Amino acid sequence: MSHAPQIDLNSDVGESFGSWTMGDDAAIMPSVSSANVACGFHAGDPSGIAQTCRDAVAAGVTIGAHVGYRDLAGFGRRFLDCTPTELADDVHYQIGALDALARAAGGQVRYVKPHGALYNTIVRHEAHAQAVVDGVKAFGSDLPLLLLPGSVALDKAAAAGLRGVAEAFADRGYNPDGTLVSRREPGAVLHDEDAVAARMVRLATEGVVTAVDGTDVRVDAESICLHGDTPGAVAMAAAVRRALEGAGVAVKAFA
Amino acid sequence: MSHAPQIDLNSDVGESFGSWTMGDDAAIMPSVSSANVACGFHAGDPSGIAQTCRDAVAAGVTIGAHVGYRDLAGFGRRFLDCTPTELADDVHYQIGALDALARAAGGQVRYVKPHGALYNTIVRHEAHAQAVVDGVKAFGSDLPLLLLPGSVALDKAAAAGLRGVAEAFADRGYNPDGTLVSRREPGAVLHDEDAVAARMVRLATEGVVTAVDGTDVRVDAESICLHGDTPGAVAMAAAVRRALEGAGVAVKAFA
Amino acid sequence: MSHAPQIDLNSDVGESFGSWTMGDDAAIMPSVSSANVACGFHAGDPSGIAQTCRDAVAAGVTIGAHVGYRDLAGFGRRFLDCTPTELADDVHYQIGALDALARAAGGQVRYVKPHGALYNTIVRHEAHAQAVVDGVKAFGSDLPLLLLPGSVALDKAAAAGLRGVAEAFADRGYNPDGTLVSRREPGAVLHDEDAVAARMVRLATEGVVTAVDGTDVRVDAESICLHGDTPGAVAMAAAVRRALEGAGVAVKAFA
Amino acid sequence: MSHAPQIDLNSDVGESFGSWTMGDDAAIMPSVSSANVACGFHAGDPSGIAQTCRDAVAAGVTIGAHVGYRDLAGFGRRFLDCTPTELADDVHYQIGALDALARAAGGQVRYVKPHGALYNTIVRHEAHAQAVVDGVKAFGSDLPLLLLPGSVALDKAAAAGLRGVAEAFADRGYNPDGTLVSRREPGAVLHDEDAVAARMVRLATEGVVTAVDGTDVRVDAESICLHGDTPGAVAMAAAVRRALEGAGVAVKAFA
Repeated sequence: MSHAPQIDLNSDVGESFGSWTMGDDAAIMPSVSSANVACGFHAGDPSGIAQTCRDAVAAGVTIGAHVGYRDLAGFGRRFLDCTPTELADDVHYQIGALDALARAAGGQVRYVKPHGALYNTIVRHEAHAQAVVDGVKAFGSDLPLLLLPGSVALDKAAAAGLRGVAEAFADRGYNPDGTLVSRREPGAVLHDEDAVAARMVRLATEGVVTAVDGTDVRVDAESICLHGDTPGAVAMAAAVRRALEGAGVAVKAFA
Repeated sequence: MSHAPQIDLNSDVGESFGSWTMGDDAAIMPSVSSANVACGFHAGDPSGIAQTCRDAVAAGVTIGAHVGYRDLAGFGRRFLDCTPTELADDVHYQIGALDALARAAGGQVRYVKPHGALYNTIVRHEAHAQAVVDGVKAFGSDLPLLLLPGSVALDKAAAAGLRGVAEAFADRGYNPDGTLVSRREPGAVLHDEDAVAARMVRLATEGVVTAVDGTDVRVDAESICLHGDTPGAVAMAAAVRRALEGAGVAVKAFA
Repeated sequence: MSHAPQIDLNSDVGESFGSWTMGDDAAIMPSVSSANVACGFHAGDPSGIAQTCRDAVAAGVTIGAHVGYRDLAGFGRRFLDCTPTELADDVHYQIGALDALARAAGGQVRYVKPHGALYNTIVRHEAHAQAVVDGVKAFGSDLPLLLLPGSVALDKAAAAGLRGVAEAFADRGYNPDGTLVSRREPGAVLHDEDAVAARMVRLATEGVVTAVDGTDVRVDAESICLHGDTPGAVAMAAAVRRALEGAGVAVKAFA
Repeated sequence: MSHAPQIDLNSDVGESFGSWTMGDDAAIMPSVSSANVACGFHAGDPSGIAQTCRDAVAAGVTIGAHVGYRDLAGFGRRFLDCTPTELADDVHYQIGALDALARAAGGQVRYVKPHGALYNTIVRHEAHAQAVVDGVKAFGSDLPLLLLPGSVALDKAAAAGLRGVAEAFADRGYNPDGTLVSRREPGAVLHDEDAVAARMVRLATEGVVTAVDGTDVRVDAESICLHGDTPGAVAMAAAVRRALEGAGVAVKAFA
């Protein structure tokens, strides 16, 4: 007897700020099982975050803390050379704030996903990777961390007794070695809804995707990252979910 | 048989921000039983807040959330006409963030004291008073609120089932009706350490202070607010504590 | 001999911030003669502001400083009880920063329009009205101020030797006394492009609009405020301009 | 015939923010000829900046723009990986804002000195060095740049037709190759007022300082950086100025 395949679908939400909106949280929520909710340092104000948490709980979606560098003007997309102590405390603060708002909505923070420049930095930056892990540990619950496959933060998490969860990207091309095709090269971003959906079914059922050179590449991922920032992205997310469920894959939060 | 008199001593701490320091937390901590810790909206950055929490726990001092309007440039001392929903969520966010940092230090948030313009506004502003209460309730624990005697927020707290705690001000003159002498009038601020200490002993043991006109005025307060922002203020705080303990008054957190 | 009628059309632009966009500056620019450019305190980051200035200069549109309270989280829509000195210096700082960016684009700040809560506050708040005037005067050029008819700031401007310019609102209903219909009442906001365009032609040629009760009301305005924050608003702005030009009204910056 | 020796003395001022004070601007101002005034991105609020400009003008001190990364929480001491366009526009905005405030005080911005992490980053980071130069050029005046000897920004400035001015540090030890002794090594920071003053006289008259190994090292500097953040630093600054003037060196702004 074999288990039915399952996978998590995650997306960034709660990224509006005051009068500025970003993404369409209500539209993406039905497609995902995990919501990476901004915590106020790169995006998100308390009232918007609270609403996003209520939306997630209403949709049965698991809440994760999307922690970022303290940089609203840069939307957390710029490396900030803070000290490891500052970073760990910033991460800790963000998780605590979000968890309070999530609990009032009937949920709670169940995982942590670093955002933007922080996500990319800790693929290699040992001190910042450790600081993120330290911030999560300081919060006291053993929250899993959602990360890029190969990220040094996966090792730091494991060493600290935290579960590291690797994710794939639905709309990104892969190199034969399993890394993402650089955005400066052709094939980096995929736009065909059906093709993307089919790729993700294959990922969820066989653990492989077709690389840019046509070969199959193994991608170990327990979650797939979807976008919700444009109507096209929302439609693609829905297509991926439909295709997965149509193929008998259970879409289920990893945390 | 009568109980020995007791009172709480509170002070604002954790109000540094990044490279800017304010107050001398380490110096004031031995004198107080309750620490009003800034939460990041009017003052306080996560690393400074975390250190303040560790200092408070080490000194056996109870941690309270010193919540304020979102206004770093104004240090929370300027009324901000936010909506009640924004204010409730801002308060909730601040308590959650501080509580996370407090717990890592071995403590937790045990009460809430509004800061600066928010403290003064909710003496009369019903919607903002209710919003503060709503933010505290949303956090889920029935945290008491530390307020000005006569504050409409005391009524809102009571109506919501929260304990409201009134405080006195060690270094402020009182009118015969129990209100504070306006800072624009003579006698508003007292500077004599010994006189202040003697007044606070009388407050704690008899429940009265001498008003500016020489009459006795009843002041119902479970806590006394002390300052720690100058060496003189720190010395006065220590004098008040010494005098209270010398008079057999137990200095003890109200929460 | 009579002069051909003329009027200014103004709109808020440059209100994006970092990764958050607001409005469609490129779409509204062809319809207006004056651009109220955000200066960074309620909206606008330097690179976005610089681009907006280049767009304005390319379209032959006059640049004004859209100064606001220091409140990104509230988009300048919340009254902030700053001191008059703080407000004057904040206004001065914002004009200076914008003027530098405008000059690099080949323009310069030619007028000042307070934004949001500041605009509304100084209709009645004498100290803040004076502070805005003081901030403009401190900048050194005698820049005109674009304001609501009846605003006390018009008096303060006149007393300081500055030109005050009153504006009308294309899509708002008017009471018989010339004030705007409150947004809480029916008829506050008009949605019919053609009707709005016809009203504005009448305003520009006869100086009157039809009030909610059907009577004519005199509105002395040298400028008309248009919105550019939705595709519908942009279309309405274009319709107003077409109708004005079709009726022989010259659309021309007041400054 | 030989010219009397002369040198500039510069110090960071205007670094308070809202209720937080830093340094003692009034105390350091009499000792310097050039004031590096914070512009609001790493420190400085408009009212504090305006006061600092008035103090500088009253003391006959030349005003420079102390531009920094947009990072109040980090006081501009953390590298921020913004794009060159963002950085150039941020620099431009800061200079424009400060210049407006300086002009109201009777002065104007006469030079630019990058602050903290930006100062250190552009010693080697070509894109950020070029961006600072671009931001200065965009302001339109050919303002000189005050920099570390050997900074790649000196080359970028020269290539853009801007004057680069190198500075020495009064209280820092020098290696035999003319670089500063790292703060992690002994001899990095000097504390003896008289020794420091004597070193600076020798620098101004002979162009050399004694390195940590006892040898003489040539240091080409047109300005000396002094600190004003502690009473000891203020006293040292005064001692340096007295010693220079006593030795017949004219203390004079370079710009």
